[in-house]
Amino acid sequence: MNPSSLTPAEEYLKQHLQDVRDLLQKQKLEETILQHQAMPHHDLVENLLHRSHQVALRHKLENLHSADIAYILEALPVEQRLVVWSLVAADMDGQILLEVSDAVRATLISAMDTSELLHAAEELETDEIADLAPDLPEEVLQELLERLNDQGRERLRSVLSHDENTVAALMDFGMVTIREDITLEVVLRYLRRQGDLPVHTDKLFVVDKNGILKGVLPLKRLLTQSPDRQVADIMARDLVAFHLDDDADEAARAFDRYELISAPVVDHEFRLRGRISVSAIVDHIRGQSDEERLNQAGLMEEEDIFSGIWKSLKNRWVWLAINLVTAFASTRVIGMFEDTIVKVVALASLMPIVAGIGGNTGNQTSMLIVRSLALGLITPGNTRRLVAKEMLIGLLNGSVWGAVLGVLAYGLYSDRGLALVMASATLLNLVVAAITGLAIPLVRHRMGMDPAVGTSVLLTAVTDGMGFFIFLGLASVFLH
Amino acid sequence: MNPSSLTPAEEYLKQHLQDVRDLLQKQKLEETILQHQAMPHHDLVENLLHRSHQVALRHKLENLHSADIAYILEALPVEQRLVVWSLVAADMDGQILLEVSDAVRATLISAMDTSELLHAAEELETDEIADLAPDLPEEVLQELLERLNDQGRERLRSVLSHDENTVAALMDFGMVTIREDITLEVVLRYLRRQGDLPVHTDKLFVVDKNGILKGVLPLKRLLTQSPDRQVADIMARDLVAFHLDDDADEAARAFDRYELISAPVVDHEFRLRGRISVSAIVDHIRGQSDEERLNQAGLMEEEDIFSGIWKSLKNRWVWLAINLVTAFASTRVIGMFEDTIVKVVALASLMPIVAGIGGNTGNQTSMLIVRSLALGLITPGNTRRLVAKEMLIGLLNGSVWGAVLGVLAYGLYSDRGLALVMASATLLNLVVAAITGLAIPLVRHRMGMDPAVGTSVLLTAVTDGMGFFIFLGLASVFLH
Repeated sequence: MNPSSLTPAEEYLKQHLQDVRDLLQKQKLEETILQHQAMPHHDLVENLLHRSHQVALRHKLENLHSADIAYILEALPVEQRLVVWSLVAADMDGQILLEVSDAVRATLISAMDTSELLHAAEELETDEIADLAPDLPEEVLQELLERLNDQGRERLRSVLSHDENTVAALMDFGMVTIREDITLEVVLRYLRRQGDLPVHTDKLFVVDKNGILKGVLPLKRLLTQSPDRQVADIMARDLVAFHLDDDADEAARAFDRYELISAPVVDHEFRLRGRISVSAIVDHIRGQSDEERLNQAGLMEEEDIFSGIWKSLKNRWVWLAINLVTAFASTRVIGMFEDTIVKVVALASLMPIVAGIGGNTGNQTSMLIVRSLALGLITPGNTRRLVAKEMLIGLLNGSVWGAVLGVLAYGLYSDRGLALVMASATLLNLVVAAITGLAIPLVRHRMGMDPAVGTSVLLTAVTDGMGFFIFLGLASVFLH
Repeated sequence: MNPSSLTPAEEYLKQHLQDVRDLLQKQKLEETILQHQAMPHHDLVENLLHRSHQVALRHKLENLHSADIAYILEALPVEQRLVVWSLVAADMDGQILLEVSDAVRATLISAMDTSELLHAAEELETDEIADLAPDLPEEVLQELLERLNDQGRERLRSVLSHDENTVAALMDFGMVTIREDITLEVVLRYLRRQGDLPVHTDKLFVVDKNGILKGVLPLKRLLTQSPDRQVADIMARDLVAFHLDDDADEAARAFDRYELISAPVVDHEFRLRGRISVSAIVDHIRGQSDEERLNQAGLMEEEDIFSGIWKSLKNRWVWLAINLVTAFASTRVIGMFEDTIVKVVALASLMPIVAGIGGNTGNQTSMLIVRSLALGLITPGNTRRLVAKEMLIGLLNGSVWGAVLGVLAYGLYSDRGLALVMASATLLNLVVAAITGLAIPLVRHRMGMDPAVGTSVLLTAVTDGMGFFIFLGLASVFLH
């Protein structure tokens, strides 16, 4: 047992990546030599040498876990990635396609023909095929559906027909089912005959002859109870199960709350239809928080660091355009007060501060609301109390920061009127920010929309526009 | 099996919350009546009635999972929360304290005396005590350490002495150890004698007489292999294990990559020291992404929605102050160009747009870099390529958006010079944004700091300041 096999530290992965890079380099060098030497009698030798590095690379890849190869593919630029991809053993293709990110998967699939894709998909379980399905060409998917047996086809259709945010989209079919009228001894013999169990099996599912779920038998109980007891006596009847169309986020919270490893998925007649495992839940959580972060930064989707320029530009333009429109709208307010600015030019350098601090406090409020909504903590019973609290904080914050900014403005321009306008505009804009920070997520939530997406953009547009309007408006009335 | 026990949907939790609220209301109403009626002969009856609701509440709480009670406590304002907390059965206190968020935990602990805290902590495992430790009063912690046996004390110390971002801080001690020279039959008999297994046990740990880890025996193999085989023949020797001081984030990625349920933790002599389970990993991932979101929104720590005003203000002021300082610094640039603004007042309403679009594109770039750094995808071998790509995107974006903004500015003010200044300032600021968006996370990463924290604040300060400087500077040179 050596330390490198003991700990899959990033160092160990990076070492493999470096090895692959070195081998690619050597191979490339040889190809160049090969092209520049035209002497025919060298061909054979060169070819052999070239091949020897390819063999070394192929050998290296054979000994890596599919997740580690996926990591290496992610970190390589497209042309090197495709060289490595062509050397990966065909029976690992399917697993690797599942492991890589969406953007990298697209580059790999585009380098494969129909028969390679079919071969890769046939190595996979039904639920894994479903995960790949959105990225597969239509004819490959059709061909796959035809090759499956009735049960497989029905299962694949049931996953594909549900929205990606439902439990059905996360489920797999690695469930071991037993009847309740047998002894544990019989169960143990049955498992030994099977010779293997699906990954993440921590419980067996007890069903009747119609496939209706009656309970679950945790492996823990199977292992610690006397073999001559009946399944019916030992199984848990009070269990956590999900419906096909339950919300995936709710399932994730339930897995967290009850510390589950796997849970049955049933239809409305309680017929067992599949299973969710904790690893599907972890993938879902990671995907969710990743998507949220991308949107917040103004990106449409995941971007491979080596994506083509054109793809990257398209990915970034939608949010940039939205931001530009809102920025233009809110700065048009400034245009209304150009006369005032010419008279008191100090307004020009103070106004972005009033707008900015409004955006910041509004974001703090809306973040807390979005988070509490996500945790299911906001109910009609406590909304009013919450609104009152945030409004009070807006007022207090506004008084303190308004005073600070007023003093700073006086220090800079020694103009008492300007200082008062600065202080009162800050106070008012922080109250506007508190109201907006509360209202946007709460209203979006009540309308059934995701309260997080785009909240920050909308909020900043309001706090900027109102900040400019309040500050310049007050100045135009009170300063001369 | 009724549907509500089948699916722990949010609806079901909210129903419980409503029930608790109703009971609290009834009890309160009676207390009020009790206070306003001074007739002594009524006392007994009223007291009984009042108690009957308390009993109903207590009964309701007894039948709920500790995680569900935690949810209810989170959703109640402080005074109602403490009423419910006083009615929770004492032997559930420890589990519930573990489940609630930090902010709510503080309110609950402050309502408990030393003996209640000691009682609550004694119901917990060593690793769970370690999780509570930071929130416990010093004397309670000392008392707990004294009450533990030698092994328990050593374990608690080993968790507490490691940084919270290490594997040691996530581990628990729920590991079942066996020797390699026995048969599976003996293992099965041993487990039946034990009568129970720790949660999340998917493998047994094989150690020698010195406690050195030799391999793991997955339950899967124990169940499917013939009982007369030896552990040594069946166990997995090629395993994923972690060192006490490994980075928790790396462990989380390894759990994801290799789809683990549990993994051994060893010291540098490969002595088994503990175990990590997937639920600790899920908690860690959730905690990480939550912390990141809080920081991005300018909040120091988690805030209970019913936290006191003063606590909320303190939580928000640090980031507000930082933002204010950077906003002040960047807008001081505007002050330098006040003469120019008085001459061409249109500059005042156009300058926030140049600054804003710079901030947005810079955030897109830095987000991709932070994410790629977190996934370990950026290596010295590909940094240059990445920088070249982002610079090119900055140039292309700058040309296109510069042209768009130039045309818009011309449309508004019919001034060709102003339009040209707008276009070239946008182009230049987007290149600045690309450089800054690349440089901040890469430099912070190289200096060993978290590339994500505060990147957005720093970046916006640079893109604002440079945006104002470039735009007004160009205007002062070229416009009259």
